[in-house]
Amino acid sequence: MQVSRRALVDPFIVMDVMEKARALEASGRSIIHMEVGQPGTPAPKGALSGLTAAMQAGPLGYTVALGLPELRAGIAALYKRWYGVDLNPDRVVVTAGSSAAFLLAFTALFDAGDRVALGEPGYPSYRQILKALSLTAVGIPASEENRLQPVPADLEGVEMQGLIVASPGNPSGTMLSHRALSDLIAHCDQRGIKFVSDEIYHGLHYGDRAVSALEITDNAYVINSFSKYFSMTGWRIGWMVVPEDHIRVVERLAQNMFICPPHASQVAALHALDCIDELEANRAVYAENRRLMLEGLPKAGFTRLAPPDGAFYIYADVSDLTENSLDFAAELLEQAGVAVTPGLDFDPVRGARRLRFSYARATADIEEGLRRLQAYMAMRGTKG
Amino acid sequence: MQVSRRALVDPFIVMDVMEKARALEASGRSIIHMEVGQPGTPAPKGALSGLTAAMQAGPLGYTVALGLPELRAGIAALYKRWYGVDLNPDRVVVTAGSSAAFLLAFTALFDAGDRVALGEPGYPSYRQILKALSLTAVGIPASEENRLQPVPADLEGVEMQGLIVASPGNPSGTMLSHRALSDLIAHCDQRGIKFVSDEIYHGLHYGDRAVSALEITDNAYVINSFSKYFSMTGWRIGWMVVPEDHIRVVERLAQNMFICPPHASQVAALHALDCIDELEANRAVYAENRRLMLEGLPKAGFTRLAPPDGAFYIYADVSDLTENSLDFAAELLEQAGVAVTPGLDFDPVRGARRLRFSYARATADIEEGLRRLQAYMAMRGTKG
Repeated sequence: MQVSRRALVDPFIVMDVMEKARALEASGRSIIHMEVGQPGTPAPKGALSGLTAAMQAGPLGYTVALGLPELRAGIAALYKRWYGVDLNPDRVVVTAGSSAAFLLAFTALFDAGDRVALGEPGYPSYRQILKALSLTAVGIPASEENRLQPVPADLEGVEMQGLIVASPGNPSGTMLSHRALSDLIAHCDQRGIKFVSDEIYHGLHYGDRAVSALEITDNAYVINSFSKYFSMTGWRIGWMVVPEDHIRVVERLAQNMFICPPHASQVAALHALDCIDELEANRAVYAENRRLMLEGLPKAGFTRLAPPDGAFYIYADVSDLTENSLDFAAELLEQAGVAVTPGLDFDPVRGARRLRFSYARATADIEEGLRRLQAYMAMRGTKG
Repeated sequence: MQVSRRALVDPFIVMDVMEKARALEASGRSIIHMEVGQPGTPAPKGALSGLTAAMQAGPLGYTVALGLPELRAGIAALYKRWYGVDLNPDRVVVTAGSSAAFLLAFTALFDAGDRVALGEPGYPSYRQILKALSLTAVGIPASEENRLQPVPADLEGVEMQGLIVASPGNPSGTMLSHRALSDLIAHCDQRGIKFVSDEIYHGLHYGDRAVSALEITDNAYVINSFSKYFSMTGWRIGWMVVPEDHIRVVERLAQNMFICPPHASQVAALHALDCIDELEANRAVYAENRRLMLEGLPKAGFTRLAPPDGAFYIYADVSDLTENSLDFAAELLEQAGVAVTPGLDFDPVRGARRLRFSYARATADIEEGLRRLQAYMAMRGTKG
């Protein structure tokens, strides 16, 4: 039995790093995890206690396909709280993580063969999900001057039916300003390009808050998640906001493709919306970690950093240290005991000279990781 | 912004029935639910207590894409327990319900434009998921003589790259014997047709147990779920068994399309595997419900029933009572206070003269539903 052509997606390179890290740990080595894209903290306490109570109260059977009405209302209220936007809760589609939201968005918007553009560097799964759905991913190299976010000039002359942007971006952590996001949306509107805004790192900012596409237009798909700010990665719960005239179509797709998002996770997410103090305390930890990283990485010789506006990553230009980020990441893992992600996961070209450092874990881990990197790099020097 | 062509899938008709039922209940009417495809029971107690303990023990972050190793091992052991089959746990892919398994299987096996056949009557989402993935669903009308299951003769001369079968079937509850399943698999092997076996009602049988495709071949995708026998619909946790040489491809797809199945649901499922007494007690309830239905439906005038081998449905030929199952279902809901599913969800042609009755709920509900159907139908007579 042969697999399909569209099944032949690329592996995540970071998975190999994680597997090597696991093997080293199994052999007794201590490894600091700066490769992972998830908080070290659990779901907020209120989410867990809310679910515990719900499990005792009754069976958690199927919910309606678009999610628990009270959760959809709570998410709509978040748009008021975060952005001052009045959002009709009917437009909120609860999904099994942002992963399911991407699957829904891409099938709702694009037919086989359509071309969908994405900024590079960017989240690697965009490209692979598009391929699995028989769509063509079109990489748009974003420039350092634009802090690794695409601008309309990058899109000129490139054929595409859709565009995905992420602000804050992964791996860069850089954000699009209201003006920059508006310019992209205007360009897409003019050309009939369908606009998908990945906002899964919203809530995690260290200066100005991120701007939502919904502050600018209703003519977009906006995707978000409880994974990052709400610290609920493994619960697989996210959401999508769609234009009003798309609700019924997306509902039918969701009924058939997913039946419903996980009920227990929906209950936990509903309660997580109220756990502001705990979540803001998490954010304060990231802010301190970020400060330590921006201070400590240059001391280890990683000097070419764009300070991130949000998320919990720093994307470093290491072209003065290596031309092979795969080998360099393997070296840092084995020699320094620090796991990092090679840039090739995010950018097939320039990524050979980039590394992504995550600062999502506890501050003590960050301090120890920086000590190790500084010690190893001092010994190593700049020549790979 | 326009939706794609492939997004225009059909609605579930049963959803409209459920919405009408909900509205009637909101207005104070009592409704007996024979339309729903899910147990009324919660997840087994051991599953809930296992999860409660895990929530206290640590964060439930991402798991590896194919699922918790101990859950995969537990599922492999189930194949030994249920069928006497030795299964390599590496071949088990834990998924977010059978829904995610279908998305994975169809993308792993088929390219846009491929034709995938399915028996009619059958689970309506097969057809809609195929469409959403730019595949062509090919309906194979199954005959009453073959108890509504396809046979090789039905497939002769029909172009297809894949075939999905379900045993026990939904809506029929009928099963394929070892011989009948072997014949279908041999036919597909000969023609290079990829074989997908939907086994989500396994464990729920009232005579002989169901036969797994894995007892016959390793050259198939086998899909199963914790939703039905394990009574965990809303938890969205299922699995798929793939050939050994497909594991890596499916792993990469799963990493990108889903990251991982819901961690909390995986923990609950792991513990559910040990809750045999509670699950067998549930099955005894279904068996009693089935006995009551087979005795009580004929007294209400529903005489053309094929006794189901498994699952928790009875598919009734009501062509002596109506030519419009939609209207008839609406009539039974409004006049008798019993919600049932029109056959059109499962069979676009003959379904106009069929109804599906579910007996998944508590026995007291079944008794009351049968009383109502008998009383109403006695008054109504056979003319619609």
